[in-house]
Amino acid sequence: MSKDTQLKAARRGIVTPAMAVVAQKEHRSEDFILQGVADGRIVIPCNINHRNLQPMGIGRDLYTKINANIGNSSLTGTAAGELKKLQSVLTYGADTVMDLSTGGDIPLIRRSILAQSTIPVGTVPIYELVARYTRQGLTGENLLTIIREQAEQGVDYMTIHAGLLQKHLPAALKRKLGIVSRGGALIAAHMVENDCENPFYTAFDRILDICAQYDVTLSLGDGLRPGCLADASDEAQFSELDVLGELAQRCRQAGVQVMIEGPGHIPLDEIAMNMQREQAVCNDAPFYILGPVVIDCAPGYDHLVGAMGGMMGAFHGAAMLCYVTPKEHIGLPDDEDVRRGIMAFRIAAHAADVALKKPGARWRDDAISDARESFDWEKQFELAIDPARARQYRTEALQASNQPNLHGGEYCTMCGPDFCSVRLSKILKNSCKK
Amino acid sequence: MSKDTQLKAARRGIVTPAMAVVAQKEHRSEDFILQGVADGRIVIPCNINHRNLQPMGIGRDLYTKINANIGNSSLTGTAAGELKKLQSVLTYGADTVMDLSTGGDIPLIRRSILAQSTIPVGTVPIYELVARYTRQGLTGENLLTIIREQAEQGVDYMTIHAGLLQKHLPAALKRKLGIVSRGGALIAAHMVENDCENPFYTAFDRILDICAQYDVTLSLGDGLRPGCLADASDEAQFSELDVLGELAQRCRQAGVQVMIEGPGHIPLDEIAMNMQREQAVCNDAPFYILGPVVIDCAPGYDHLVGAMGGMMGAFHGAAMLCYVTPKEHIGLPDDEDVRRGIMAFRIAAHAADVALKKPGARWRDDAISDARESFDWEKQFELAIDPARARQYRTEALQASNQPNLHGGEYCTMCGPDFCSVRLSKILKNSCKK
Repeated sequence: MSKDTQLKAARRGIVTPAMAVVAQKEHRSEDFILQGVADGRIVIPCNINHRNLQPMGIGRDLYTKINANIGNSSLTGTAAGELKKLQSVLTYGADTVMDLSTGGDIPLIRRSILAQSTIPVGTVPIYELVARYTRQGLTGENLLTIIREQAEQGVDYMTIHAGLLQKHLPAALKRKLGIVSRGGALIAAHMVENDCENPFYTAFDRILDICAQYDVTLSLGDGLRPGCLADASDEAQFSELDVLGELAQRCRQAGVQVMIEGPGHIPLDEIAMNMQREQAVCNDAPFYILGPVVIDCAPGYDHLVGAMGGMMGAFHGAAMLCYVTPKEHIGLPDDEDVRRGIMAFRIAAHAADVALKKPGARWRDDAISDARESFDWEKQFELAIDPARARQYRTEALQASNQPNLHGGEYCTMCGPDFCSVRLSKILKNSCKK
Repeated sequence: MSKDTQLKAARRGIVTPAMAVVAQKEHRSEDFILQGVADGRIVIPCNINHRNLQPMGIGRDLYTKINANIGNSSLTGTAAGELKKLQSVLTYGADTVMDLSTGGDIPLIRRSILAQSTIPVGTVPIYELVARYTRQGLTGENLLTIIREQAEQGVDYMTIHAGLLQKHLPAALKRKLGIVSRGGALIAAHMVENDCENPFYTAFDRILDICAQYDVTLSLGDGLRPGCLADASDEAQFSELDVLGELAQRCRQAGVQVMIEGPGHIPLDEIAMNMQREQAVCNDAPFYILGPVVIDCAPGYDHLVGAMGGMMGAFHGAAMLCYVTPKEHIGLPDDEDVRRGIMAFRIAAHAADVALKKPGARWRDDAISDARESFDWEKQFELAIDPARARQYRTEALQASNQPNLHGGEYCTMCGPDFCSVRLSKILKNSCKK
């Protein structure tokens, strides 16, 4: 008999070691986590073969998590390069990482990543499938082979685009930007070329068997996510979501943990509605959203545009945000792009958590404000979301002002000592105490 | 007799040339602008002596505007340096610019800026006042001298912190971070040291006379804006806001255009309430907000944190956003910081305008999406909020992939041709049409 999945264990009332770890990290009781997992509101992606994983929970009652994508493209990127990106991802503080490699020795890259990653690792199996067998090899047997191999290696969660069906294609292809999900477009092309149904949909029960065996969490991909504001919240998007809702039910019946992936490009005023709709249609399965970017016209700044949407998504109930980098819509990100993407989304997640008053969420803000008041620059850097960057900027500003001896002083180069409000205010506070 | 202010003209039913320009820029009727100015919901900062100004309106029914601050500090910065920053501000697309210089030959710097600026120029007169006379010279006569000189030079709007009164100090100095507004802290120190009332408050009627003469728009500063989440929406902040509401009434009675400045550091869940409160207390005077930053712990990224709050502020009714740069809380920004600050806030403003469905707000997003679908890279760059940056990133990505010949190709280095969803989707669209 295979091990219980977290979901099956929770239903039997067993607090697993992973649940205990999650409870501690989240400042919640073990019973709270147990109940959340049992109900499917919380998932803990932890493949039984991912040995050095530090378990982490995803659900809207927990801290908002962020995912960073790495992986080469078919044009560029090596295993060594991907491991370097993984180190960045861990250093900069993402909660999960997805390996989206589509070229080179994909199993080797993934094995190296799994060996070194202490955070959950996700994949999109169709990428390896198409890279290995070409699009013509997109059959049920081949995809089960890939999924089984990846599960056996220790992949914690997999995105499969099982909700995009033949019947959705007319609405999808009428759109301004059609199908912008890579997985979705590959499957659509396969369905059109072979006049067949989505093989991930037809093989779904057999996929569930594999996932149950290794406790792979399924992340039901949104192959029809809108790729521009004009396509947001349309028939194609919501028809697929309805299918995802049904598939989520089947996951739970099979004891497989499940989350739902979300849009995409959504204007600010439609974000709350999108979050509520997912919760209703998918029975509170954690919503894992990509951005959403709230405007289309800022290439070069989409990390910021996506983080803005992500913040509002999290505020209205998304559980995890997939980062977007400044190179989105332009090219493959480099290390600095990865850093900026992660930081933008950590900020978005934290802003939502603070606003939602999640337990303990604001301690860091209060502590850094105390450090500001006392001009403890080192403490401010330590508490900063990106300590190295904050320190670097202060050093740069001091150098630009030819006042490097200011370091440690009770003011900064923004105002200088005579105009420093914090310094003045502190003097006033003290004088009024006398 | 001096010329009418825009407000006085509007009340007499006269559509000024400035109003006509604003109507055209905003895709609104002249009558709509006239009525907004007459009611005080719209201001058009345009000093009669600012010769080369291209008039621009501020109000929540118009496109959300953004302001960029330049100006040296008492430690660093020259007139030439500030003019270079002004060029950046104009290039990167801010709607107004504030010269916050506190050192060197301030009148000369300002004169140069006014001569070259086609957008409204704002100042905070207390900075020049303290720089010229020291804090001991903070008298009614001196401040009227400074305000008159600046008005005569052509300053379009001035921030004065007239709402912070002696009675507010106990609540303000109890806070975690006290008074973080520079102007507010200077005035508070003056009031404590001399046991007197705020001279901007006591001289308010005489200030109004000068503003009416030159049509200087007053921007009533929030000397007690919260400097951290722990101080947000507190007694000190809202007591001052009540005074600003009274002063706004006095401005309107004197025919002086007025806007209100707002916080500061505000958590996401309190932004809507803050916007509504200002509208109610200040009778719909345009709200000009600084950020707000929605978390305290991201030094180095406060442009992004402030833009997130600014977007939500604009969505809930703010009319103009004051940018924050990555160096906020750390040091004086350089040119790259100014660029990143402006872009972050232009994005925030645009995201709110799109969500609020302001007339014509989304054309750029729809057009860039069309350019994406047709792989027209040059058109995408042209339509981008920061064309040079978008072009630069694509070039970098192409070089990193050793595929510079991709330029103009129907894919990017993110996915390469075999995995490009937009390319696949386009092929599918065409095949389905046949």
